Amino acid sequence: MTGSYSLLVADLIGVAVFAASGASAAVAKRLDLFGVAFVGFVAALGGGILRDLVIGAVPPLAFADWRYAITAVLASVAVFWLHPQLNRLRRTVLLLDAAGLGLFTVTGTLKAIAAGVPPVGACLVGMLTAIGGGLARDLLTGEIPAVLQRDIYAIVALGGAIAVTVLSWLNVADMVTLAAAAAGMTSVRLIALYRRWSAPVAVP
Amino acid sequence: MTGSYSLLVADLIGVAVFAASGASAAVAKRLDLFGVAFVGFVAALGGGILRDLVIGAVPPLAFADWRYAITAVLASVAVFWLHPQLNRLRRTVLLLDAAGLGLFTVTGTLKAIAAGVPPVGACLVGMLTAIGGGLARDLLTGEIPAVLQRDIYAIVALGGAIAVTVLSWLNVADMVTLAAAAAGMTSVRLIALYRRWSAPVAVP
Amino acid sequence: MTGSYSLLVADLIGVAVFAASGASAAVAKRLDLFGVAFVGFVAALGGGILRDLVIGAVPPLAFADWRYAITAVLASVAVFWLHPQLNRLRRTVLLLDAAGLGLFTVTGTLKAIAAGVPPVGACLVGMLTAIGGGLARDLLTGEIPAVLQRDIYAIVALGGAIAVTVLSWLNVADMVTLAAAAAGMTSVRLIALYRRWSAPVAVP
Repeated sequence: MTGSYSLLVADLIGVAVFAASGASAAVAKRLDLFGVAFVGFVAALGGGILRDLVIGAVPPLAFADWRYAITAVLASVAVFWLHPQLNRLRRTVLLLDAAGLGLFTVTGTLKAIAAGVPPVGACLVGMLTAIGGGLARDLLTGEIPAVLQRDIYAIVALGGAIAVTVLSWLNVADMVTLAAAAAGMTSVRLIALYRRWSAPVAVP
Repeated sequence: MTGSYSLLVADLIGVAVFAASGASAAVAKRLDLFGVAFVGFVAALGGGILRDLVIGAVPPLAFADWRYAITAVLASVAVFWLHPQLNRLRRTVLLLDAAGLGLFTVTGTLKAIAAGVPPVGACLVGMLTAIGGGLARDLLTGEIPAVLQRDIYAIVALGGAIAVTVLSWLNVADMVTLAAAAAGMTSVRLIALYRRWSAPVAVP
Repeated sequence: MTGSYSLLVADLIGVAVFAASGASAAVAKRLDLFGVAFVGFVAALGGGILRDLVIGAVPPLAFADWRYAITAVLASVAVFWLHPQLNRLRRTVLLLDAAGLGLFTVTGTLKAIAAGVPPVGACLVGMLTAIGGGLARDLLTGEIPAVLQRDIYAIVALGGAIAVTVLSWLNVADMVTLAAAAAGMTSVRLIALYRRWSAPVAVP
């Protein structure tokens, strides 16, 4: 009970952070209030919607539980009004985004396994849950997705999804090990940001 | 019987109009005949396909009932051949598009409610039914979706979807009240066009 | 047994070729190693994922059978390392791509018919199976989809899907006639390339 409640709270914090990242991108592109709210919604919930469609959980959680949509829209509207102050919060946003990355990967992978998706597929679904929203955000704002270009981001999600799948296969996926997996992803992501790690690009 | 028949006719008119809007955008981008038909198909039926995937109605109506696809393709091919004359029809097209907006929102919201989607989700699904095709049309032709940038369009759909959900919750959603909701959306959309209303953009 | 095994091998060759086309486009856009693998995955499996979502086969084959994802990723990584040599292979790639076009259309159309999709819808699903991956590849790399602009490609898939639907309706869809349909599509595609056929564009 308390466990699932704290999971919901953590999930909604992830939604708010991802919505804020989408809304910021939309404000920068001079979209109107509706566009900002919509891109925020898609950035926060697009990955989960894709996950739920793939595992056959319809209607997706984003439409079945109103708290997700409302959280995403409120966070987006807040960014619309407050965005000049957001630059000062940039470090906080990056920190929360790294936390959301770890959390969304863990919940996405677990849901895929629970729905009977085999291991390789479950890893892909877990990763897509974490990166799907950012991909959709960039497509809607006319950019080639950042996650494909330079950052150590998706690869952290993929590694974390593999860890969760292995934990689940070993029957040791409990709150402690899963929290450790999420914290591990968040840490690697923050170190990658701090050290400016980037993935290799092909030799021309 | 007659009611569902007139609903089908109205639905197909909406499909034809939205297909024409997609085909016009594709002609302007110098796409070939196939591209024009494809973008027209997606503009007309993309919102409904998304709706049906989200509520678990597979295969989506666009694939299950041949009249939808054929109507979309015929309207698109007509635009391909006749587009020089279309400029004179611009007002008619905007009028029909506003009618399609009202109609698609009503049918999308009702289908979501009938599929057991809770109220907030049903409003979002209804709105997505109306704007999804235009979003996909703009992405396929390399544009940032117009609906996110300036127009009073999606917000009309959202308001209408809320109205339909409330009508349904009050058990007064019959042909008369639903027609009034659709007509209300169409009117607000036309007034917004005429008065050049636009949604606010964030202060830089 | 042997029939389904050779079908799997043929399917995986198609996946590898489409992944190579996606990975090549991603290398040209200077995406990183993850981006190259991801665009390759989507180019190879995006059409099939869309098909499976539309016919309600969840989780889609790309997530349910690990051999598809692994094949796509290995082919993409190979392109990442070997792409300077690929120019010499350009003719081979175009040949294999034409073979993939025929094969994916046949399997996509058959799966749609088996899932109970009516004829017109089955033709559309078969065509989307073949062109969906290329569409997604172009959207992810910031291009207006090539298939909408000039090539005789999607129309070959549509014609082939109609042929398969007719064969199936006549109850003569066996390994021989279906192989003939796939070979026919591949041949028309190659002749169209060789003769530089292109679809008409609207008169401005």
